[in-house]
Amino acid sequence: MRFIAWLAAGLAMAGAPVLAQPGSAGAPDARLVEDLVVGNHVLAELGVVDGFGHLSVRHDKDPHRYLMSRSMAPALVKADDVLEYDLDSVAVDPKGQALFLERFIHGEIYKARPDVMAVVHSHSPAIVPFSVSQVRLQPIYHMSSFLGLDVPVFEIRDIAGQGSNLLVSSPQIGAALARTLAGNTVALMRGHGSVTVGTSIPQVVFHAYYAEMNARLQAEAIKLGAVTYLTREEAAAAAKTNDALVARPWDLWKRKAMKSD
Amino acid sequence: MRFIAWLAAGLAMAGAPVLAQPGSAGAPDARLVEDLVVGNHVLAELGVVDGFGHLSVRHDKDPHRYLMSRSMAPALVKADDVLEYDLDSVAVDPKGQALFLERFIHGEIYKARPDVMAVVHSHSPAIVPFSVSQVRLQPIYHMSSFLGLDVPVFEIRDIAGQGSNLLVSSPQIGAALARTLAGNTVALMRGHGSVTVGTSIPQVVFHAYYAEMNARLQAEAIKLGAVTYLTREEAAAAAKTNDALVARPWDLWKRKAMKSD
Amino acid sequence: MRFIAWLAAGLAMAGAPVLAQPGSAGAPDARLVEDLVVGNHVLAELGVVDGFGHLSVRHDKDPHRYLMSRSMAPALVKADDVLEYDLDSVAVDPKGQALFLERFIHGEIYKARPDVMAVVHSHSPAIVPFSVSQVRLQPIYHMSSFLGLDVPVFEIRDIAGQGSNLLVSSPQIGAALARTLAGNTVALMRGHGSVTVGTSIPQVVFHAYYAEMNARLQAEAIKLGAVTYLTREEAAAAAKTNDALVARPWDLWKRKAMKSD
Amino acid sequence: MRFIAWLAAGLAMAGAPVLAQPGSAGAPDARLVEDLVVGNHVLAELGVVDGFGHLSVRHDKDPHRYLMSRSMAPALVKADDVLEYDLDSVAVDPKGQALFLERFIHGEIYKARPDVMAVVHSHSPAIVPFSVSQVRLQPIYHMSSFLGLDVPVFEIRDIAGQGSNLLVSSPQIGAALARTLAGNTVALMRGHGSVTVGTSIPQVVFHAYYAEMNARLQAEAIKLGAVTYLTREEAAAAAKTNDALVARPWDLWKRKAMKSD
Repeated sequence: MRFIAWLAAGLAMAGAPVLAQPGSAGAPDARLVEDLVVGNHVLAELGVVDGFGHLSVRHDKDPHRYLMSRSMAPALVKADDVLEYDLDSVAVDPKGQALFLERFIHGEIYKARPDVMAVVHSHSPAIVPFSVSQVRLQPIYHMSSFLGLDVPVFEIRDIAGQGSNLLVSSPQIGAALARTLAGNTVALMRGHGSVTVGTSIPQVVFHAYYAEMNARLQAEAIKLGAVTYLTREEAAAAAKTNDALVARPWDLWKRKAMKSD
Repeated sequence: MRFIAWLAAGLAMAGAPVLAQPGSAGAPDARLVEDLVVGNHVLAELGVVDGFGHLSVRHDKDPHRYLMSRSMAPALVKADDVLEYDLDSVAVDPKGQALFLERFIHGEIYKARPDVMAVVHSHSPAIVPFSVSQVRLQPIYHMSSFLGLDVPVFEIRDIAGQGSNLLVSSPQIGAALARTLAGNTVALMRGHGSVTVGTSIPQVVFHAYYAEMNARLQAEAIKLGAVTYLTREEAAAAAKTNDALVARPWDLWKRKAMKSD
Repeated sequence: MRFIAWLAAGLAMAGAPVLAQPGSAGAPDARLVEDLVVGNHVLAELGVVDGFGHLSVRHDKDPHRYLMSRSMAPALVKADDVLEYDLDSVAVDPKGQALFLERFIHGEIYKARPDVMAVVHSHSPAIVPFSVSQVRLQPIYHMSSFLGLDVPVFEIRDIAGQGSNLLVSSPQIGAALARTLAGNTVALMRGHGSVTVGTSIPQVVFHAYYAEMNARLQAEAIKLGAVTYLTREEAAAAAKTNDALVARPWDLWKRKAMKSD
Repeated sequence: MRFIAWLAAGLAMAGAPVLAQPGSAGAPDARLVEDLVVGNHVLAELGVVDGFGHLSVRHDKDPHRYLMSRSMAPALVKADDVLEYDLDSVAVDPKGQALFLERFIHGEIYKARPDVMAVVHSHSPAIVPFSVSQVRLQPIYHMSSFLGLDVPVFEIRDIAGQGSNLLVSSPQIGAALARTLAGNTVALMRGHGSVTVGTSIPQVVFHAYYAEMNARLQAEAIKLGAVTYLTREEAAAAAKTNDALVARPWDLWKRKAMKSD
């Protein structure tokens, strides 16, 4: 590593147009890594992710770094699989492993949103239909109040044209997604899935799970007829209350995930 | 505890406007506590509750006391987590633990309904869409006949205004919910979930489970077209018959829950 | 038992209007009892029955007797719980146990249908909405071809009036249900569930499972628009082919059920 | 075997109109057989197959041979159950076992499509409604982009008439199905299920699973209103990207299946 960093630094000094290998911010807190591993398993057990999807967390030693596994199924992630990235989504030490093609989702959101400490990207099944529909995702109960009344939909055609592979495979597309997300907690991605943010791993998992639940319940409610959604004030008040209750389901999810590991 | 009770009594005698710490009604029957613990686990396994939701039972030694866990996920409740509350939902000995913000649901219903011995509050997924719809929950088969033909919907805006956090977080809101419930077995809570009552833990779990099942089946039936619901007389007759059969599913649920503990 | 049989015979000879305790046809084949026990567990694992529902089989020693458990959840049935009934649904030896209130479903169908060797009664969830709808259950794929094109719906109001408890709680109601079933394989029961028949335990379990699957898939197909159902000829041809393939899923189901016991 | 091959060759030389028993291409790679066994279990765990459905792979030693289990539930398949077939779907050595009635699906597709290395036939539940509907299956997200914009529906009435048992029970019907499939990845089979092809076992399992997911999500999206599907260009680009990512879910599925074996 030291040699590579030295080489990258040397090349950079020499004016070479390479993407310099970033230096490490140091070892993250072991409990943060444990929560990142467990959070991956929880998302799989809750059905938010399957073989695809990813969870990241901002580095506790440096806000310009984040932690995420190498390219692999979330249910299989172990501490050894966690890599450190800078906010351009360059891995500090890729360890010869393949990286997620869409890691730019994470880096660009951490850049644009200093308040965000954790990010989930998923194709959770009830969300996808809303991503290709004119119907907007709206909170139908207090558990999903964090959605607020303005869940945006990211149309990748606007930035990548009519024939893209739909992946957020560059910093430019990641930055466009971050602009669509703006100050919200969830953005849908047309024909793809969603991105969800939070101030901690437990909270972002809570957000990802209840966004999916809301999609499922809202779809059912729409089939029954007119729906009474939360008002903007109710959503704000309930979200504030729920923020203090995140530890309750997290305790349950973490215990179950660790039991089945 | 004795000191606190004495202090509370003393303050009350002195006319102090404090909420006196209530005295204990004594240790409840151990089998009742076991059923309360198991009932929590059963509700989690049946999908009626997730990380949220609660089950309470009236104290067998004193109708002015009820038993419920501290604030935690139902699937994790153990006998040690069970606390005693008076009907104002003040814990006799909170043991330094956080309490459910919505414990008033339970206390106020026990006050208003002397026939009720157990209460479930949940956000069970098929019920929520009915809580935000103009379509009323109605029994489509004998298993949910206890619903009767008048399942009310509690609109918290009527008591707490347009910008509440939707929680039954005070005795006043709890009393309003109890008034909406009136003499029925289930009341929906708009944008939130439901409350279900019974004459025992097995019966209230039965009610909560089959109310959820009815919501799921009624939603499907509505999509097929016109629905033939139970008549009022059929609902009453079937509910009476089912009351004698509650032990059958309870035996199954209890055995499964104790096996997976 | 001999004393009771003697007493019943004596009372009958004396002209007493009692329901004589029937004599036993002898011990059934142990493999038949094993399949009956396993069949109960399979139906529970497939979600066809929950705490309620029952499976019976005609006695291999006497076509005027059938075997079914005492009143209990199917998932918990063991060989010791199996009782012998005559076709009036009187237990040869109730062993002091409670009997299913609806055992008459079984006895009356065995009376009316000599070709039937096994019967399932259930409230399986996708079937119930069709029981309260004007839409008829029809085979949408070859697996449910045994349904044929005439799945009847039993309206208990026609025999028991507007205020019944919906249960088939007498020989008279059972006989009416058998008349509605006529020569078919499945009859829906309005506001209740269904009854399914077969020529063996594996076949009746196959029928009950794929009737439920058909209900679920047909409901989804209807939501998409016009549906192409099997023709009468296709249904007949496919049912005949499938009859020879029942052992395939039965092997799987039996193995899984015995593994999880 | 040698005797049978000799006999078959002899009869063929003698001009006898028998279906000559084909010779073996030799033992396949043990890892291919392992993947075939695991692939069967994975398809069962993913809910793509139940007691019915089958997976085959082209023989690695001879493109005119393929490997598939004897007639049995996929979840129970072991290496010993795998048989070798020629492209007329004659078993090289049936070992006295019953064969799938519909093995011609596989042989005829391998004949018509030299690019195809693996085939799945299933009745996966979300696909069946599309097979009997006028609504075409179309990719709503990148995961199912391999569907392309032309998923054909095979109407067996066109080849087998109005009263068939719906099974692909002859080389002629198999060849007709292969013509309907043409160059596509998935063909629906009216009133029956689907056939899915791939260039490897992991890829065909991926295709079968995400075709089922697409059906489920597309059905939900349609209920919400107008749907934005992938363009032809997006589908092609995303399918190409996903082809390189098949190992990711396969690792997860294989590990889970081997753990639960």
